[in-house]
Amino acid sequence: MCSNEKALKGIRILDFTQQLSGPYASMVLGDLGAEIIKIEKPGGDDTRTSPPFLNGESAFYMSMNRGKKSIILDLKKTEHQQIALELAAKADIVMENARPGVMSRLGLGYNEIRKSNPKIIYASISGFGQNGPYRDRGGLDIVIQAMSGLMSITGEKGGRGMKTGSSISDMFSGCYAAIGILAALNYRNISGEGQYLDISMLDSTIAILENFINDYCVAGVVPEPAGNRHTGLAPFQPFETLDGEIIAGGINNKLWESFCKALGLENLIEDERFLATAQRLANIDVLAEMITEKTKTKTTMEWEQLFDTIGIPYGTVNTVDKVIKDPQVAARNMIVEVEHPIAGTFKMAGSPLKMSKTPAVANTIAPILGQHMREILKDVLGKNESEINRIIKDE
Amino acid sequence: MCSNEKALKGIRILDFTQQLSGPYASMVLGDLGAEIIKIEKPGGDDTRTSPPFLNGESAFYMSMNRGKKSIILDLKKTEHQQIALELAAKADIVMENARPGVMSRLGLGYNEIRKSNPKIIYASISGFGQNGPYRDRGGLDIVIQAMSGLMSITGEKGGRGMKTGSSISDMFSGCYAAIGILAALNYRNISGEGQYLDISMLDSTIAILENFINDYCVAGVVPEPAGNRHTGLAPFQPFETLDGEIIAGGINNKLWESFCKALGLENLIEDERFLATAQRLANIDVLAEMITEKTKTKTTMEWEQLFDTIGIPYGTVNTVDKVIKDPQVAARNMIVEVEHPIAGTFKMAGSPLKMSKTPAVANTIAPILGQHMREILKDVLGKNESEINRIIKDE
Repeated sequence: MCSNEKALKGIRILDFTQQLSGPYASMVLGDLGAEIIKIEKPGGDDTRTSPPFLNGESAFYMSMNRGKKSIILDLKKTEHQQIALELAAKADIVMENARPGVMSRLGLGYNEIRKSNPKIIYASISGFGQNGPYRDRGGLDIVIQAMSGLMSITGEKGGRGMKTGSSISDMFSGCYAAIGILAALNYRNISGEGQYLDISMLDSTIAILENFINDYCVAGVVPEPAGNRHTGLAPFQPFETLDGEIIAGGINNKLWESFCKALGLENLIEDERFLATAQRLANIDVLAEMITEKTKTKTTMEWEQLFDTIGIPYGTVNTVDKVIKDPQVAARNMIVEVEHPIAGTFKMAGSPLKMSKTPAVANTIAPILGQHMREILKDVLGKNESEINRIIKDE
Repeated sequence: MCSNEKALKGIRILDFTQQLSGPYASMVLGDLGAEIIKIEKPGGDDTRTSPPFLNGESAFYMSMNRGKKSIILDLKKTEHQQIALELAAKADIVMENARPGVMSRLGLGYNEIRKSNPKIIYASISGFGQNGPYRDRGGLDIVIQAMSGLMSITGEKGGRGMKTGSSISDMFSGCYAAIGILAALNYRNISGEGQYLDISMLDSTIAILENFINDYCVAGVVPEPAGNRHTGLAPFQPFETLDGEIIAGGINNKLWESFCKALGLENLIEDERFLATAQRLANIDVLAEMITEKTKTKTTMEWEQLFDTIGIPYGTVNTVDKVIKDPQVAARNMIVEVEHPIAGTFKMAGSPLKMSKTPAVANTIAPILGQHMREILKDVLGKNESEINRIIKDE
C-alpha cells in the first residue's frame, strides 16, 4: 500500500467552485493526484470565514481545500475573465457551481471554453440542475434534503422529518460529479472527446432514496420517519442496556437464532409470531420489549464482547470525540494531521480511497488565499515578470 | 443530450457483491455503460426477498440491479469457483463485498485472480475495511451510521442521535468504490497496471463528517444533534406558517437584508444582535421567535411565491409521493419507468449523471435469477452446448 504513483497524474482541473459541493468533488480528485487550480474571488471562497478558526484560518476551508492551488481572479473584470479563459485552454477539466447561466454570462461557459479547448470536460454542479422550473433557485443543502424526500424519512417515529446532520446532499452531488468526471475522462482517453456534465444536488439526493421510492410506487405507502429501526429487517435497532444502549439484532434466520440464544430467549426461535423477517417486522413492538427485558440486565460492554464472540453485528452511537480516538479509525488512517504554516497542527478526515498502486493522499495543506498566483501565471500561462506584477497589483 | 455512446463502453465487471453497497456501485457503473456480470448464489442476492414485490419480483432488487446480467454460481463448489476464475480472467474489474478473507478462501481473492489477469482492478467493499481490529465484524448500515459519529449529529436538539432514513453509509461507500474504480481505470489506461481497492463503509462515512470533526478537534466541542437548523449559518431553518412551515432564511448579509425586508422586519437589519452570521447564530433563539411571528401570518405558498420573486432560497419538506410528482423531478428525468417481463410497469430513480456525450442510461431491466447463464458461458467463456447443459444441470 505504498507508492508515489497518482491515479490522476498530469490531470489539471480549473476549479471555479466554492462552498461545499464543488470543493468536495475537487478535493476527492485532488487526493487522487489531479492538480487543482482553485479560482477564488477577491476575499476568497465564502468558507474562508466559516468557524472554527486556527490562528484566523478556517478549519472548514482547510479540510475541504487541502492540496489545492489558490489564485485570485475578479471575474467581473474583463482582463481576469481573459486569464481564466487562458487557463481553461490549458486544463483537462473545468468545474463550477454557480447558479445556472452565470458562467456563460462571464464568457466562461462550456460553449465559450470548448472553442479554444474542444477536449475540455466541463462539470457544472447546481442545486436543481441546468434546466427545469426550479433551475434558478438557490440549492442549500437543507433545502435539497427537504425537497428530495430524504428528510421525510428521517427522525423519530411519529415525529417531524429531520435533516441529516452533515450536508450530505452537497457531498453526494460532489461524489456524483467526481464519478461523472472520471467516467468522462475514461471516454476521452478512448475517443479524444470532451463533454459537458450537469450534476444537481436534487438529482443526487433522489438517487439515494433506495427502497423508499418503491414503498410509495409499488406498495402505495407514503414513507414516514421510522426512528432508528432498520425498516426492512427485524430485529435490528438500539436496545437499552444496564448502562446505555446497544444496536444489534438478527438480520436473517441464522443470526436471529444466534441472537435469541445469546439473550437466553431460545423460546422465541419457534414462536410463530417471529418465524421469518416479515413476521418479526410486523410484531416488532412486542418483540423489542421482550428483547429489552434481557438487554437491560447487562452492560453495553458485556453485550459487545458476547456479540463479538458469536459474530452478531453490533455497534453503539459514537460521538465525534470517540470516533477520533477509535482504534479502527486509527488503523485505517482516517484522521490525518498536517502542519499548516499559519494554522499550525491541524486534523481532518483522511481519504476512503485505499488503493494499492495509487493510494489517495489526504495529508496535504490548503492554500493561503492567492498563494499560487505568481506560480500559475508564470508556469501555466508563461507570463513574464512585469505582466505578472501588473496583474497582481491590479487585483 | 442525446447519444448512444457509453462512457464505459467495452468495460466488463465481474460483480460478486450483494445487498446494497456493492450493487449500488455496480449499478452506477452499469448506467455508464459497463457490462455487469452479477454472480448470484443459488437462490440469488438476499435482496431478491426484500419487500415490496411486483408479481413476486422484489422492487428493491430491481431498482439496484437494473441492466445487469445474472448468472448463478455456487462458490462452495470447486467447478463453480473455476468458472468464476475463468470469468475473472476475461474481466476488467472484479467487485466483492463479502467479509474480509472470504474471497481468498474461495480462491477468488486479488492475489489469486491477478495471476491470470495482472491488469485486473479488484475492489473490495466491507463494513470496516480489510485491516484493523474490527475487520471481521459485520457492517450493517445502521451500525456504521452509529459508529462513524453521523447519528450523533442528527436529530432533534437535546434528543437522541438519529439514523438517516436511507442507507447512506452503504451508498457513500458505493460511490467511493465507483470513484476508486474509475480512477484506477484511468491509471490503467495510462500505465497498463491494475490494482487492489479496499473501500470501507466506516471510512466513507467518516469522510462526510465535514465540519463536525473540526468542531471537536479545533473548537473542543463534542457536536450534538442540532435539529433542522443550519449549524454554520443563521437564520436558515423551518419556520411555522399559517398552514404549515417553510424552510428559508438569509445566509449572507445581502440575503439577510432581503429576507428582513420580505418579512417586514427592516428594523432587524441594523439591530446589533444580528449584524453578522456569528451574532445571528449566537442569538438564533430570539431571532427565530421574531421571524416566526411574521411567517405565521401567511400560507406556505404565499411565502414561496414571495421568496421566489426576490431570490431567497426556500423549500418545504416533501414526502416521497410529492417528490415523484414534482415538475422539477420530471424535467430532470429522475423517475424512470421500465416494463419488466414479470413485474410489469416499474418506476425507480433515474441517474444523476447527466452527461452530454455519454448520458447514463437508467431505464434498464433487472435480470431474472440466472437469466444470462447460458449466454455468458457461451459468449464469454466459449463453452460448448454440452458443457453448458452439464453446468446448468449441476447448479
